[in-house]
Amino acid sequence: MRLSHAFIPTLKETPAEAQIASHRLMLRAGLVRQTSAGIYAWLPLGLRVLRNIERIVREEQDAAGAQEILMPTIQPAELWKESGRYEDYGKEMLRIRDRHDRDMLYGPTNEEMVTDLFRQSVRSYKELPQILYHIQWKFRDEVRPRFGVMRGREFLMKDAYSFDIDHAGAVASYRKMMLAYMRTFQRLGLKAIPMEADTGPIGGDLSHEFIILAPTGESQVYYDAAFEEIDYGAGGGFSHEKPEDLARFFEVMTGHYAATDEKHDTARWDQVAANRKREGRGIEVGHIFYFGTKYTKSMGATVAGPDGKQVHPEMGSYGVGVSRLVGAVIEASHDDNGIIWPDSIAPFKAVILNLKVGDAGCDALCARLYAALGGNALYDDRTDRAGAKFADADLMGHPWQIIVGPRGAAAGTVELKRRATGERVEVTPEAALARIGG
Amino acid sequence: MRLSHAFIPTLKETPAEAQIASHRLMLRAGLVRQTSAGIYAWLPLGLRVLRNIERIVREEQDAAGAQEILMPTIQPAELWKESGRYEDYGKEMLRIRDRHDRDMLYGPTNEEMVTDLFRQSVRSYKELPQILYHIQWKFRDEVRPRFGVMRGREFLMKDAYSFDIDHAGAVASYRKMMLAYMRTFQRLGLKAIPMEADTGPIGGDLSHEFIILAPTGESQVYYDAAFEEIDYGAGGGFSHEKPEDLARFFEVMTGHYAATDEKHDTARWDQVAANRKREGRGIEVGHIFYFGTKYTKSMGATVAGPDGKQVHPEMGSYGVGVSRLVGAVIEASHDDNGIIWPDSIAPFKAVILNLKVGDAGCDALCARLYAALGGNALYDDRTDRAGAKFADADLMGHPWQIIVGPRGAAAGTVELKRRATGERVEVTPEAALARIGG
Repeated sequence: MRLSHAFIPTLKETPAEAQIASHRLMLRAGLVRQTSAGIYAWLPLGLRVLRNIERIVREEQDAAGAQEILMPTIQPAELWKESGRYEDYGKEMLRIRDRHDRDMLYGPTNEEMVTDLFRQSVRSYKELPQILYHIQWKFRDEVRPRFGVMRGREFLMKDAYSFDIDHAGAVASYRKMMLAYMRTFQRLGLKAIPMEADTGPIGGDLSHEFIILAPTGESQVYYDAAFEEIDYGAGGGFSHEKPEDLARFFEVMTGHYAATDEKHDTARWDQVAANRKREGRGIEVGHIFYFGTKYTKSMGATVAGPDGKQVHPEMGSYGVGVSRLVGAVIEASHDDNGIIWPDSIAPFKAVILNLKVGDAGCDALCARLYAALGGNALYDDRTDRAGAKFADADLMGHPWQIIVGPRGAAAGTVELKRRATGERVEVTPEAALARIGG
Repeated sequence: MRLSHAFIPTLKETPAEAQIASHRLMLRAGLVRQTSAGIYAWLPLGLRVLRNIERIVREEQDAAGAQEILMPTIQPAELWKESGRYEDYGKEMLRIRDRHDRDMLYGPTNEEMVTDLFRQSVRSYKELPQILYHIQWKFRDEVRPRFGVMRGREFLMKDAYSFDIDHAGAVASYRKMMLAYMRTFQRLGLKAIPMEADTGPIGGDLSHEFIILAPTGESQVYYDAAFEEIDYGAGGGFSHEKPEDLARFFEVMTGHYAATDEKHDTARWDQVAANRKREGRGIEVGHIFYFGTKYTKSMGATVAGPDGKQVHPEMGSYGVGVSRLVGAVIEASHDDNGIIWPDSIAPFKAVILNLKVGDAGCDALCARLYAALGGNALYDDRTDRAGAKFADADLMGHPWQIIVGPRGAAAGTVELKRRATGERVEVTPEAALARIGG
């Protein structure tokens, strides 16, 4: 993408309404614009990040055996009356009346709807377990939306729902999702810690929230070093397919101390060895629940069990805030100059800075690099001065900057800067491409 | 995906509420389920098709130089009061009041919002042209939603908006989008014909709608054979970058007779050579508009022109119904047994039919084929009888069926069936894989 014609409206001034780093940086770098209180339009740079996060979330859901569906944003009120949550939900639910005066609502979550789809479709225990997920826009009418996309009203969420024939199956599904989440956060370049949580309006008796570490996080967190030492990825030795792996994984996840200040238990904390105590700030980015037959009973969803009798399947639900993660990643990874994107979700791998647009050598070398990198590069072909280009490149946070000036172009070299470390090296264009590609 | 555990609830009976083929087949093949009148949940098989269509639409928008953004579903009423359309839109607009009693709406289209983003961000003619698009759920509160996803209330649409400094630029953008649309439909396996249209509530003075041919289409269409003879793709010799190509393309598109029965002009039709007359049934799947400064004037959007004076940019808007296309493709491509997916958007390239689950030879051969095809194959590993499997495979419409029976497995052969032609050949597994892959 050529920056001279890209719809990336950066701001020089810090917007007064933005109280936290990610909100300020998302506005300044031209990732989003607010269209109503707590509602945002995603501009090209922000949308690329959102889609990258969505892709990683999807891949890990698929790897865990979950099946993707897509439920609509608008739901009928009747389903929520069946479960009994229509009145409970209060003013955060955006209630709508259609032209025929039917009560509708903009879904804040989907336990009712997915249970309805399930009860229409699944007849036998033989079809279980099922984990269904979707990645869809939700709406919660927050009384005071703030912190940009971190606490918006219209937000993108991945929510999954598991259906199992019995408690043991439900626990296995719960553990699978926990593993999928830890893998997701690791791929996003985040340090995440699962913590026991209250179940709140979803109900149920087992629940964890996922806190990621960020220096500007909303809560103080206390945790055992164990969480920093585990490889959740392919090399970690945990398979979704093996119950014994899932049990061992769950034991590790729940066998070490971790709490936010709200639930901090100093007596238990004192038992953690001093050299294993870690503290930091954290942000909640996901929440998983096991709630058994709460919805299958209230909504009359059953399948035939092995003995032919009708059984209410056991359910869990599993949410991760996809749009919230864009803000959370920035809170975890930025400096005074701007965003520092992890390679896995950067909108562009690299930016090519042409320091002298119009200089034949610079233009030709930039064109060559741009052709080689294709859609992975943003090309700053604006006629602005070098200082402005450096500042915008740091602000937007591309992992690599390829700096092309007239002297280097004549000598056949470029400067390659790594955003995360600030390291700059003079290399041949080929060496720069090799380093970025690898 | 293994069919025994896939969330693909096929129906034996034809649902009484479905009046047209695509609606019947989408319900019967388990692509969608209705959750409220005119509102659908997309199940795994349907979602894969929707995403495939979305991907092709996106690729062709990107190729035309359009930039993807994502505007929210919920819009503030103020923007529509600025343009004057808030009252005009009538009951099809889903109006919402939030907890602070602010008037909001579920966007039926985005001219106002994109003009607002543009006026905040773009300052100079040097940044033009700009074409911004998004693929987002829209809502139109149809009084009588019907025909499944063809006329639903919540529907997925790609809408693009062009901004140009003058009329000539706007015409070039209009032609680019027309070319992008013709390429999109060709890749979807559809025969599309652009027809001059009224501009309706969007306003403006130039407009085309895109009709695709389908035996069960809603209108009778009359057209010149020319439209069937053009290659719109890479080989067609039209480039988005060359104004002379776009002019020649537009001349071809508008230089031949094409009309639906509503606008049919028998006098002009009589001038078409008899051997070039074509008739058929058609479905509208896209609509493009040039409307100049209608919104930039009413909403005060300007950029500095070359002489420093403020100019109202000229706009166009370009819509294609992504979810509607799923239905339209089925109307264009089905038979008595079910759907016949074009290869480019099929949910799976192939289905593997294990005719004797539990037979060691069949199981081993199917496992081998399934491993080789990976995510491109659905594996029918159910214990049902062969007849039910054949019927479901035809119903779901996968382009290829690999039929594995005990005799073939012993002899090292499979039957390969092409859904579109019904052709069946006995081949080695390797030959089957090669044919499907190629």
